[in-house]
This record gives sequence, structure tokens and C-alpha cells, in this order.
Amino acid sequence: MSEKSKNWVKAEDVARLAGVSRSAVSRTFTPGASVAEKTRQKVLAAAEELGYQVNIIARAMNTGSSNFIGIVTAGFDNPFRSKLLAPLVHQLALHGLIPLLMNADDPQQLAPSLKQLLSYHVAGVIITSGAPPLSLAEEYLARKIPVTLINRHADLAGCDRVASDNSQGAHLIAQHCTNRGWRKIGFIGEDAHHFSTSQRYQALKKLLGDRLVATRFFPGGGYEAGRAAACELCEEQPDLEVLVCATDMLALGAIDGLKAHASRPAVTGFDDIPQAAWDPYQLTTVQQDTALLARHAVDLLLTRIAQFELPPRQRAVPVKLIVRRSA
Amino acid sequence: MSEKSKNWVKAEDVARLAGVSRSAVSRTFTPGASVAEKTRQKVLAAAEELGYQVNIIARAMNTGSSNFIGIVTAGFDNPFRSKLLAPLVHQLALHGLIPLLMNADDPQQLAPSLKQLLSYHVAGVIITSGAPPLSLAEEYLARKIPVTLINRHADLAGCDRVASDNSQGAHLIAQHCTNRGWRKIGFIGEDAHHFSTSQRYQALKKLLGDRLVATRFFPGGGYEAGRAAACELCEEQPDLEVLVCATDMLALGAIDGLKAHASRPAVTGFDDIPQAAWDPYQLTTVQQDTALLARHAVDLLLTRIAQFELPPRQRAVPVKLIVRRSA
Repeated sequence: MSEKSKNWVKAEDVARLAGVSRSAVSRTFTPGASVAEKTRQKVLAAAEELGYQVNIIARAMNTGSSNFIGIVTAGFDNPFRSKLLAPLVHQLALHGLIPLLMNADDPQQLAPSLKQLLSYHVAGVIITSGAPPLSLAEEYLARKIPVTLINRHADLAGCDRVASDNSQGAHLIAQHCTNRGWRKIGFIGEDAHHFSTSQRYQALKKLLGDRLVATRFFPGGGYEAGRAAACELCEEQPDLEVLVCATDMLALGAIDGLKAHASRPAVTGFDDIPQAAWDPYQLTTVQQDTALLARHAVDLLLTRIAQFELPPRQRAVPVKLIVRRSA
Repeated sequence: MSEKSKNWVKAEDVARLAGVSRSAVSRTFTPGASVAEKTRQKVLAAAEELGYQVNIIARAMNTGSSNFIGIVTAGFDNPFRSKLLAPLVHQLALHGLIPLLMNADDPQQLAPSLKQLLSYHVAGVIITSGAPPLSLAEEYLARKIPVTLINRHADLAGCDRVASDNSQGAHLIAQHCTNRGWRKIGFIGEDAHHFSTSQRYQALKKLLGDRLVATRFFPGGGYEAGRAAACELCEEQPDLEVLVCATDMLALGAIDGLKAHASRPAVTGFDDIPQAAWDPYQLTTVQQDTALLARHAVDLLLTRIAQFELPPRQRAVPVKLIVRRSA
């Protein structure tokens, strides 16, 4: 080790000052390890006094793994994923885990990113919705690195997933349409094979039956796709009463696209990004609980880091209908 | 090391297959190290064939530093900072550097985050605009860890900074006001001590002289602050011809806040976030070149990692006026 790190306070020093064993110090700083609260407090006080910094790199050398968690995401400028990132980083920090951020947007970055995460001996990987291909998850799992998916689907050994309850969301939207007496309903989604779009669409189709009269999928989604899809649908079906959109970004685009149109159906979204509450939109939408998604994701990952051979688990996070002016 | 890593391909294997020295392999995977292009290609081909993954943790143990770069930011859901994050991660990846993400929003996370970054032997730290206190930079610099600031100010040894050219931005806005013949101009900023707000305000004050008739600072900034500030200013000065805002978020809020008002001055922003181009806003704004900000930030950091004892450097990145409907 370099000069820089040689003078650092050692775990032994902390143990001596705290009057506890070396192992108690180690357990205090190991996520998920068991240690009595009183012992933990003593260790933390001594560590604080000495300015002790866990040498994670040394630990990783000894144990073959680290406290790094890869977050593989895409579309940093997608407001929903930005909204999810803050609680995710927060939850990881609470457990002493440190996020390595990977942008899967750029296909040329994907393969190097995978190798990088492996070379850092990541303890686990969280893959969010959007572009990251699921083959990535398989590569990690083949190396017994736990993977948690957020708003994605995959039945893979060693892989857990947490998603917003899209079926509940579809029920809330369908119920809202029933309450309003709407019988001519259009749907706009991203790619038809996209997890969230397909879950929301399938549930709505079942619930709405022949009230669902028009559907449009726009791979990639986003604001411009919403504009275009809304205009197309309303030209085809000028008597649509409501446009149900699979994401808020599609819905915001739809609202703007329809301003120049004769027919002005109600519009609903899904996500509740900050812009949904802005004045020109006041979007009625299904709110995803990003704090709870993050909490479950980290909890699933931690328990699987402790025991890789668990059966695949999945959790659904409740959603909430937010009624605003748009519908 | 654990079983998991024992079977990994070693640098020696890559060197043998590529027909080059062990040191050539090492240099190929060391950011900033010199290696002939032909050699590099041979090494990369052999590494690819063997599935070689650089063991960064082992390297960090040997050298006392790592390829980790801390990105300390705040307000992940601030669209401008989200827009900056993607090119930043991209530029780091191009140099084989891996971003450790720290959210400085939560003051309780700041101290642990600092310790974490230190315990990972980060090679350098990038601190973006917003909440992160500059005392953080001092703590890193005291340990000879290079720091680059983006859109922040500090004169600290070992600390470089890159910022959008706020003075040029102010000139562009002032020129636009002159071209339009506006003589009653209001300004809305975030905290008056905030780097970007204060730079933009000071430059505008000088350029506009007594055409600048009203000013309002709203610590924290954001959409709601923009709404409130615009309404207040226009009640005070109903004859304002244009509201110059220090950020797009303030400007978007201002546009929405003024919809219910009798007086409807033009509005300009600064940043060019995606929402600035949305229909209800069509915001005239000063575009920051996030790709170039990221490129300079990483370049400054890399050169200082190579040689810590450089004098403090600063770079200004040119901006561009984007004229849309709002002004």
C-alpha cells in the first residue's frame, strides 16, 4: 500500500478504544452482520473519535467481494428514473453500500461496464427499467452476483424483482373511467414488449373490454412519441373520451399534441413525475412509490447477498391514483 | 481471495497471448498511461478473447489508489443536473474510470459519504453545482485527492474548475433585450450567494444598467420559487417587459405563474433543460453545453491525478442563445 494509506487508523485501534473484540468492529461495519446495539454504539463512538475509515479495498481483497452495488440504468434524463435514483442511493447509503453508476443507454458502453462491475467485485446489481438488456442480469448471475430488477421482468435463479403494482394501477384507472362514464377509451404505450407498458395494457384490456377502442404503441416512448400518438389516435377516432397513457412522459406529450386538435379527450398518465403537477398539465396519474420501490430493492438484494440460494422472489409495491385537472 | 476470483484470467495470460510484455498489458488498462496503438490493439484483442477483467481491487491494493471517481451532486431530480450526469458518466467510462455517486442533498449523508469515498481510495472527486458544501472539497484536498468543481467557485490548491461562460450568457441575454427594445427588465435568481445566480446577476447588472428595474432572489430556486417570484415582481412593477431568470426551472415556474396575471412580460431562462422546449413554455434560454462541461471536468481531473502539484486551473465553456417563443 502507498504511504497515503499506511498511517490510517486500523480496526484493531478502534477495538482497543471501544473495549470490544476486533470481530465486533468488523461486524459493525459489515452490512447485514449481527452485532449488539450497545456494542455497535461503542464501536461507532470509538471509530468517530479516531477518524477510522473502513478500508473497503483491503476487505474486498480478503473476502473476494465488496460493498459496491452496481446500478445499471438508462436515460438519466428520464424524470421517473431520476426520481428513483435519489431514494435508491439513499437506501444503499443507509446500509453502508456504495453505488457504482452504469449508463446502459450507450450500447457501446454496456460490455465494458459489465466487465468493470465484475472487476470491482460488486456485491450485487440493481437493474432499473428502460434499456439495459436482461442478458446483463444473466451474466452477473452466472458469476453468482445477486441481481434485483426494478419494474422489469425475468424468471432467473438468483434474481429478485420489485415492481409497482401495475394491475392495481390499471384497476384504479379503469374505475376512474367508469366513474366518469367514459366508454370510448384510447391507450398509448411505449414498446408493446416493454414490461410496464405490456403489464398495464394487458390489465386494462381485460378491465375495459370493448370500451378500449384504439391503441397505439410507440417504441422508445417519451414526450414527442406522446404528441404524435395522441394526434394519430384522435384523427382516427375523433370521439375518444379519454387517452390512457402508459407513462407520464407520453401523457404530457399527448396533452400538448392535442391542444391544436378539435377533439380534446381527457388524458391520464402513470408514474407521477414532478412535471405532472405543473400548471399546463395537472395530470391525473397513477403515482409510483419510489421510496418504497428503493427500500424493497435494497432489502431483496441484501438478503440475497447474505444467501444466494434463495428462490426468486417478487414484490409488488402499491400505487395511488392522483386526480388532477387532466381527467 | 475467494474461490470466485481465483480462476480469473491474469494479466500474464493476456500478455502471453498478445505477445507483449506484462507491463504493456498493465499500461493498456491504466488511464493516462502511454502505450503504442498497435500494442494496445493486440492487448485488447487478447483480453477480449480470454475474457480478461482487470482486477481493480488488487491494483488499488498495490498502488494505494483506485480508478474510482466520486461524483458528489445534489438534487438528482433537477433536470439540469440529470442532463449533466449522463455525459459525465460517459466521459469517465471512456477513460476506464468508474463513478461513485454521492447524494449531498441529505446533510446526514454528507459526513458518512466523505468517509466512504476516502475508504475507497478515490482517485479524484467531481463536485457539481447545488448543495454540496465546499468544505467537502477542502477535506479531499487535505488528503491530496484532486477535486474538480463544475459550475462552482473556489480558489483552493489542487482544485480545478470548469463552468459555463456566464459572462457570455449575460451578454447574449442583454443583447437580446437590446434587440427587442426592452427597457424595463426584471431578474429572478436563486440564492444571491449561489455561484451561477451571482455570476449571471452581476454580469447582467453591469450590462443592463438602469434597465434592470426589479430583482428577486429565492433561495433554493425551482419551479415553485419561479411562480411566486414572477407574481411578486409583476405586482410590484406591472410594466416589466421581460423577466430574466437565472435558471430554466425558475423561468418555467414564472411562465406558469404569470398566466393568471394581467401583465405578461417575456421570460428568458438559463440552462436549456428538455422541458424548456415543451409546447407550453418554448423558452428562450442560454444553452449550457453539458457534453463539453463533462469533457473538461474529466480532462482537468485526469491531468491533476497525473500531477497533483499543478496550479489551480479554470475553464469557461461557451454558451449559446436559443431563441424560442417565450421572448
